[in-house]
Amino acid sequence: MQYKDYSKEQLAAEYEQLKQQFEDYKALGLKLNMARGCPGQEQLHLSLPMLDILHSDSDCRTEDGSDCRNYGVLEGIPECKRMMAAMLEVDPEMVMVGGNSSLNMMFDTIACFMNKPVVEGLPAWYEVKDRKFLCPVPGYDRHFSITEYFGFEMINVPMTWDGPDMDVVEELIKDPSVKGIWCVPKYSNPQGITYSDETVRRFANLKPAAKDFRIMWDDAYCIHDLTDTPDHLISIMQECKKTGNIDLPICFCSTSKITFPGSGVAAMAASDNNMKILKNKYKYQTIGYDKINMLRHVRFFGDFDGIMAHMKKHRAILEPRFNLVVDKIEKNLTGLGFTNYLKPNGGYFVCVDVMEGTAKRVVALCKEAGVTLTYAGATYPYGKDPHDSNIRIAPTFPELDELDKAMDVFCVCTRLAAVEKLLGK
Amino acid sequence: MQYKDYSKEQLAAEYEQLKQQFEDYKALGLKLNMARGCPGQEQLHLSLPMLDILHSDSDCRTEDGSDCRNYGVLEGIPECKRMMAAMLEVDPEMVMVGGNSSLNMMFDTIACFMNKPVVEGLPAWYEVKDRKFLCPVPGYDRHFSITEYFGFEMINVPMTWDGPDMDVVEELIKDPSVKGIWCVPKYSNPQGITYSDETVRRFANLKPAAKDFRIMWDDAYCIHDLTDTPDHLISIMQECKKTGNIDLPICFCSTSKITFPGSGVAAMAASDNNMKILKNKYKYQTIGYDKINMLRHVRFFGDFDGIMAHMKKHRAILEPRFNLVVDKIEKNLTGLGFTNYLKPNGGYFVCVDVMEGTAKRVVALCKEAGVTLTYAGATYPYGKDPHDSNIRIAPTFPELDELDKAMDVFCVCTRLAAVEKLLGK
Repeated sequence: MQYKDYSKEQLAAEYEQLKQQFEDYKALGLKLNMARGCPGQEQLHLSLPMLDILHSDSDCRTEDGSDCRNYGVLEGIPECKRMMAAMLEVDPEMVMVGGNSSLNMMFDTIACFMNKPVVEGLPAWYEVKDRKFLCPVPGYDRHFSITEYFGFEMINVPMTWDGPDMDVVEELIKDPSVKGIWCVPKYSNPQGITYSDETVRRFANLKPAAKDFRIMWDDAYCIHDLTDTPDHLISIMQECKKTGNIDLPICFCSTSKITFPGSGVAAMAASDNNMKILKNKYKYQTIGYDKINMLRHVRFFGDFDGIMAHMKKHRAILEPRFNLVVDKIEKNLTGLGFTNYLKPNGGYFVCVDVMEGTAKRVVALCKEAGVTLTYAGATYPYGKDPHDSNIRIAPTFPELDELDKAMDVFCVCTRLAAVEKLLGK
Repeated sequence: MQYKDYSKEQLAAEYEQLKQQFEDYKALGLKLNMARGCPGQEQLHLSLPMLDILHSDSDCRTEDGSDCRNYGVLEGIPECKRMMAAMLEVDPEMVMVGGNSSLNMMFDTIACFMNKPVVEGLPAWYEVKDRKFLCPVPGYDRHFSITEYFGFEMINVPMTWDGPDMDVVEELIKDPSVKGIWCVPKYSNPQGITYSDETVRRFANLKPAAKDFRIMWDDAYCIHDLTDTPDHLISIMQECKKTGNIDLPICFCSTSKITFPGSGVAAMAASDNNMKILKNKYKYQTIGYDKINMLRHVRFFGDFDGIMAHMKKHRAILEPRFNLVVDKIEKNLTGLGFTNYLKPNGGYFVCVDVMEGTAKRVVALCKEAGVTLTYAGATYPYGKDPHDSNIRIAPTFPELDELDKAMDVFCVCTRLAAVEKLLGK
């Protein structure tokens, strides 16, 4: 039976029962965390052999003879460019390998365009006083923060099960002060949605009023499958080649959730025109990124096939966690008629819409009971969820038994907040 | 006898002899490089044990229990902050540890101030259309490039044997559009000059018209001594504490020339006010830098004393190289009355003033004979040496026997260019 069909008395009884369960959990003094998409201990252990894979002077040479310990090689070593290019499904010539953070490469990209024109003859974005950026919601808070820092007005674009609502995008890009859009095209953060072929093709066909409109294509979860029926994302670069729009997308990925989040390798792919502007910044910014760490990754994996084999080990660890989260939601929440979620085929999150107007309350209740969630609203620009309903669950970090307990707490708090609302408490 | 005292005939004879020597070198088909301050193979070998110093899951824990492999810890791990603070002679609370490049931290600092006010109420530097930066010359080309990239007019400040000419600095900072100065205060790049106590104190006492004037204090060679009589630099932070000018300097250092240039650890130190502005950028820019690499450094050295012991090994490798360079210059050039140089007590370079108007020619001749030098003019903003006389020699990368040969070539080319000039060729 759904909550909307409960009588007042039934709701009151439900409230008392949930309240008691909540107090019981509180008494346990739990300290559990489902806030951030951090790999757990078992996952970190998988890449341990990478730590001491290089030993000798000769170990540090690239395939073309460079000594990775010394200065230079701004674009990254060739064997690592090739491996990351395979991940991004582009030619190695389009790739630059960076430091330990693709987020930093995205920040650097926006920072670059703030100070130098993206397209010759146009003003740098700093000069565009009413600059705007499109933000599919719910989305990744750290994306939104970057454009907020640089003074963009952020415009929400609703997500559909096929990706951002392209009707809305096609309308909004008629405004020349709209300079770009944030995308996590595969297993999106937080919903786990993969953009449909049509969505990608509509992106590749965009004709923005701003000639310097850019798509920030953060393919963070491109190979992070969790099931036997993984999603398939078609290549934006391939599609843009067909439409003559090759300057539109800039693609990013990293090994943060493949090897070590703090010490992975990030990469980007861009057209000649875009890379020219970006490298003209990078060449002043640094002499080169950590090539030893690039080489460590190459030696550990061998090639992209090696990465794919490694991802199977991650899946073996993560799949039970995601199943547990989904089972708990289905068993405890979906029947009540107010929650909405998608069972993802990959990625790092399960995204739940709780009863409208109760997300903040759910997070607060969970906190009181010792379970930390990402703050409600985090998945929206300015931290403002207009419906106060979206919550992002990150099931990777806790141990399975902790996750079990944390999800029980989450389900009770979600129901309690809903009943409170229905009772006008 | 000095060249100025040579008769025309003597010069002509000298020319023929040098020309023959030059042709003989050319015939050898040499391929030697004294262009960049890259450590040589022996030096890189010193830090080899650092590569595989971490093995197990528990190895990756910091002293306060963080797992270095995972996300987080924006400022750097505590034990590494402490070690770098000792190098910078500041409190650990003033320090942030970054990625593999202090140059990148300097770029990020200028980039930050371009887009956000350094001091509340003042405009960001982007808004200051006639923004200027002071550049002690000769200096480090990559410093100058950063301010050139960001559209600063660069103003030369002559170096004296005590550091930048402070009379000139004190005069120039009366202009409120002058926003900062680049400094390499110890074993300066390229001259190897260490700022005198008085120079540092005059810096600490500056009263710039611009409240957002900042001193970029790049202490790249702070512990890179080469002799038994090392220079001593007094602490700019200490002096600025005394004068109440603690917001003036921002200090940088790295282990690039201590461990591995491509895979070292960089750090900066700044006042609370400055750090607040900078961290408000870094927190959007990245989730954190490579903590495993920080930990590798700490485990390898133990503490700052360990670094100092390690520097003695570098000195043992480098001292003979610097002695050779200086001996060659003294034996072959100084007697001729047109070269000027300082024998440095540390650092990475020997800086030679050849005959005015011949530096470009010397570099071109060397190149023809197979010896690569930094391009003439590199040590000046816009690559323009007004006297065309300054050449930076980097003696660290070649093997000793190669360096011997390269310096012979350099001396012959320097003399040949001078004689050419005197003969009006």
